[in-house]
Amino acid sequence: MRTVLLAATLCSIAVSAAAQTRPDPGPLTIAREGSFFVGGHDVKSDTLSAVTGYAASGTITVDQVYVHYQVPVGTLGVPITLIHGCCLTGKTWETTPDGRMGWDEYFVRHGHPTYVIDQAWRGRSAADPSAINAVRDGKAPADQLPKVFSAGHEGAWAIFRFGKEYPQTMPGMRFPLAAQEEFWKQMVPDSLANLPTPNPTVPALSELAQKIDGTVLMSHSQSGIFPFQTAALNRKGIAGIVAIEPAACPTPTDDMKPYAGLPILVLFGDYVDQFPRWAPRLKNCRAFVEAANAIGGRAEVLVLPDIGIKGNTHMLMQDDNSLDIADILLDWIGKHVTAAGR
Amino acid sequence: MRTVLLAATLCSIAVSAAAQTRPDPGPLTIAREGSFFVGGHDVKSDTLSAVTGYAASGTITVDQVYVHYQVPVGTLGVPITLIHGCCLTGKTWETTPDGRMGWDEYFVRHGHPTYVIDQAWRGRSAADPSAINAVRDGKAPADQLPKVFSAGHEGAWAIFRFGKEYPQTMPGMRFPLAAQEEFWKQMVPDSLANLPTPNPTVPALSELAQKIDGTVLMSHSQSGIFPFQTAALNRKGIAGIVAIEPAACPTPTDDMKPYAGLPILVLFGDYVDQFPRWAPRLKNCRAFVEAANAIGGRAEVLVLPDIGIKGNTHMLMQDDNSLDIADILLDWIGKHVTAAGR
Repeated sequence: MRTVLLAATLCSIAVSAAAQTRPDPGPLTIAREGSFFVGGHDVKSDTLSAVTGYAASGTITVDQVYVHYQVPVGTLGVPITLIHGCCLTGKTWETTPDGRMGWDEYFVRHGHPTYVIDQAWRGRSAADPSAINAVRDGKAPADQLPKVFSAGHEGAWAIFRFGKEYPQTMPGMRFPLAAQEEFWKQMVPDSLANLPTPNPTVPALSELAQKIDGTVLMSHSQSGIFPFQTAALNRKGIAGIVAIEPAACPTPTDDMKPYAGLPILVLFGDYVDQFPRWAPRLKNCRAFVEAANAIGGRAEVLVLPDIGIKGNTHMLMQDDNSLDIADILLDWIGKHVTAAGR
Repeated sequence: MRTVLLAATLCSIAVSAAAQTRPDPGPLTIAREGSFFVGGHDVKSDTLSAVTGYAASGTITVDQVYVHYQVPVGTLGVPITLIHGCCLTGKTWETTPDGRMGWDEYFVRHGHPTYVIDQAWRGRSAADPSAINAVRDGKAPADQLPKVFSAGHEGAWAIFRFGKEYPQTMPGMRFPLAAQEEFWKQMVPDSLANLPTPNPTVPALSELAQKIDGTVLMSHSQSGIFPFQTAALNRKGIAGIVAIEPAACPTPTDDMKPYAGLPILVLFGDYVDQFPRWAPRLKNCRAFVEAANAIGGRAEVLVLPDIGIKGNTHMLMQDDNSLDIADILLDWIGKHVTAAGR
């Protein structure tokens, strides 16, 4: 029901979403910007290094999460925290591969203090090389190596729903493939399989939400479950959750209390039902939304084709109508999240 | 001789550098900002992944360099490219551990388009996990593992010249140690020992310099040699070099032609002669400057205590007088680099 209502309110936006031509926005004035870390703890190791000039034994700090932020001038909207997905970093939300404005800047230009993170063990958030050095030194067997993987272009192709098989494309597909070289450069090795559950990013997000004192946690894909796990840990500071194509929503049979009263939007793009990786995920998210709402939740699922927006891939924050989708999210946040949870 | 002349011109700045109290700078207006990659190429691998759902075989893109930039409004100064050192990322130049403004923003506020990179294979610039997976899969021996190391707090202590031995401190030392926890979170594993010479960052910097069409390459520590190697590759786009505490300058017996006429400043902080790691590096840089100037170079060495500024560590862009040092560099760039090399 909620989805239907949402669809109705968004039809006017959808109509204008067919093409994305945006005028030069002019200069951007920000009140302040910078970066810092949340989370993290010290670990001792005897296999930090096998390189001359750097000691093997010592203390390093890991599990912290890098945060870059900008706060605009003027009346402020609800702060938004952007949490990237698999095999990617905070770069996900910045300039698109074909050089258009990223959501990070767009949200700031619309009055929202915006925080972009790198998940723990990725990007500017440190990993621990001890296990690699322990194996090289013969102190541990090879199966103790960290499970680090990269997604190849060919395999990522279907995961991102550019097409069913590399290099075919879905009809009407909106990802700027002419700039795919620049996109592949965004991809980095992923340590998620090596990390505990919940991921260290989760308690770090809780620390961040409390520090900001009220933020929408906006996830993508792999990180989809993180904001829900953060809310289960502590609702403090979480004003709402926007899950962009989450790899997982909470299981409907889980305790739904952490989500009661929390504005939650689950957003999916096009072609979902044609991909065996994605169809069950959407189905599970629908079941979660139903379960959450059954105990007084404020959760919704929006599938873009249902409001007439077609062609969006899994990387919809970089698709050719990315700012139109950002408008939909800002509209939803403005209507549902205002100051809630602060 | 040049050092002496420079010291004389900078004395007025040095006098005011005893304490750093800066008023709130107010809002910042920028013409444009964003991020992109330079460098990078595709590699094929059969050991990308040992994780279910991600194919082992495929193509990934590596050796690219992440670049984040801001361009201010108004009359523009010479663009500055900031290149971090060992075991760190572009975070080096952002907000200091104790929450003061980083050089990245300070340079923008002084009219300089500013570009901050993550070295290849670090931070938001991808590494290749294939060698790790090959060893885990039994396809390669353990000595084929990548040489990735982390610098422990205890060992880094003397490298950064906080003190001769952890946790002692040098007299009058200016690094904000009360915020050291936040500083340790900046440190990440380092793949430099695993990469060819010149580092893939070097051709990427050349591409960036040509794209910007005139930039000062400002290095730190490990990356000290990179701008010189970039100039040796191609002078195009390099307006000047500022080497902050370089781990290495070019060998004086090298061909000096790549540096002829190029404004070069080598900057060191305090206590250098008391550290066996650093004293020879300064000495070698002095010899390089002499050799470069002998064939018509425009190179200078500035050691901060020589102009009365004491207590600076290896991390001088984060020391408590960091913006005073930034002023010295901006003054030098303004006098020596204006439009040169463009």
